[in-house]
Amino acid sequence: MKKVPVLEIFGPTIQGEGMVIGQKTMFVRTSGCDYRCSWCDSAFTWDGSQKPDMMKTDEIVDRLNDLAPGRYSHVTISGGNPALHEGIGHLVQTLKQQGIKTAVETQGSTWQEWMLDIDEVTLSPKPPSSNMKTNWQQLDFYVERLKEEGKGQASFKIVIFDIEDLKYALAVHQRYPHVPFFLQAGNEDVKEADDQSVRDRLLTKYEWLVDTVTKSEDFNNVKVLPQLHALLWGNKQGV
Amino acid sequence: MKKVPVLEIFGPTIQGEGMVIGQKTMFVRTSGCDYRCSWCDSAFTWDGSQKPDMMKTDEIVDRLNDLAPGRYSHVTISGGNPALHEGIGHLVQTLKQQGIKTAVETQGSTWQEWMLDIDEVTLSPKPPSSNMKTNWQQLDFYVERLKEEGKGQASFKIVIFDIEDLKYALAVHQRYPHVPFFLQAGNEDVKEADDQSVRDRLLTKYEWLVDTVTKSEDFNNVKVLPQLHALLWGNKQGV
Repeated sequence: MKKVPVLEIFGPTIQGEGMVIGQKTMFVRTSGCDYRCSWCDSAFTWDGSQKPDMMKTDEIVDRLNDLAPGRYSHVTISGGNPALHEGIGHLVQTLKQQGIKTAVETQGSTWQEWMLDIDEVTLSPKPPSSNMKTNWQQLDFYVERLKEEGKGQASFKIVIFDIEDLKYALAVHQRYPHVPFFLQAGNEDVKEADDQSVRDRLLTKYEWLVDTVTKSEDFNNVKVLPQLHALLWGNKQGV
Repeated sequence: MKKVPVLEIFGPTIQGEGMVIGQKTMFVRTSGCDYRCSWCDSAFTWDGSQKPDMMKTDEIVDRLNDLAPGRYSHVTISGGNPALHEGIGHLVQTLKQQGIKTAVETQGSTWQEWMLDIDEVTLSPKPPSSNMKTNWQQLDFYVERLKEEGKGQASFKIVIFDIEDLKYALAVHQRYPHVPFFLQAGNEDVKEADDQSVRDRLLTKYEWLVDTVTKSEDFNNVKVLPQLHALLWGNKQGV
């Protein structure tokens, strides 16, 4: 069994984003990413500023149970890009055997077979403002595999900062019209320490996104959301 | 075909609550309610302050298409309690034939057969702070019927102001453990005109609810949400 590089384990808290918004959950955040998004709000997972612990499944589960004995039934595996780590498969199986649901978010650039055991997969390919390039063939493969019988739900979540990002989102939505589709207002202040300032700018950006989407004929069957955790706690880590 | 008492039709906007949070949608708000919740944020639907138009399906659909030609694929039927009106069945069928999805919210006090044609039913029985009494037998009947083959999804959404409301929510959650369960922070300022003040108090209440639920062993597989529309637009009607 391969160990997993874990940067932080925290909770219970609520999921702030996408298809699992509001869900009471624990977070296991892994280290490492194959992307370097210009506006990444978790750059500490890949910029070398924080060091991960290499952890076995049992150690991760023990830590979850220490933090929240009897107080969770859902675990979010986040990153970085958790799909870099084969060892997560064993963790997901172990949690499943205990009746605990799992969710994951990845940009869809690297596949792992354990994706099929996840209850809620958020696919979040990155728009032009990130300065990253999408591998569409890899994304096609992801969507195709995630359709398989007996697995959980999948959705797209695209972070939007500007009109170019919305054009990219439209290309994703039109390429995969049957996959539930979420648009998320981008956070332009990932280093801002003042919570009120973060909140105000996020809601301004969110209102712009809602206004633009409601006026558009291109986006009808979509959900438009802010980051709830950032509205509550600004850019704090570990909440 | 029975006419429907319509108080307002507006959109496209986003759904601010529960299982459909963030969804781009049109709203058809009906008049009349069998409840008088102490904190109702749509009391104009039942307090006599605003008069409905009696509308036929075609008139409602025409109005939707005038407001948002080609810009919607989802309609929320709201109230008041829309389940008072048999005529909504014809509207729901007509929208369905055009490929338009529908959502409804009701406290679950009165049943209509057209509930089975709705894609997303939010059941929102009212906690003690409302001063209303729940008819549990009627709610049992609702949940049982909504399990029927081939119909859409159903969920509970309980508005929470205080600990007594949370005790009530727990009774609902334990009685219907397999129904997706949402807790929503209550809005204590339904007459406040200052948007910033509404926003700050809502987020304070939301943070209290998140904190209480994450510390509890009683609520694990739940989602905890604020009212997104109130964060954006305060108590304004018609958005």
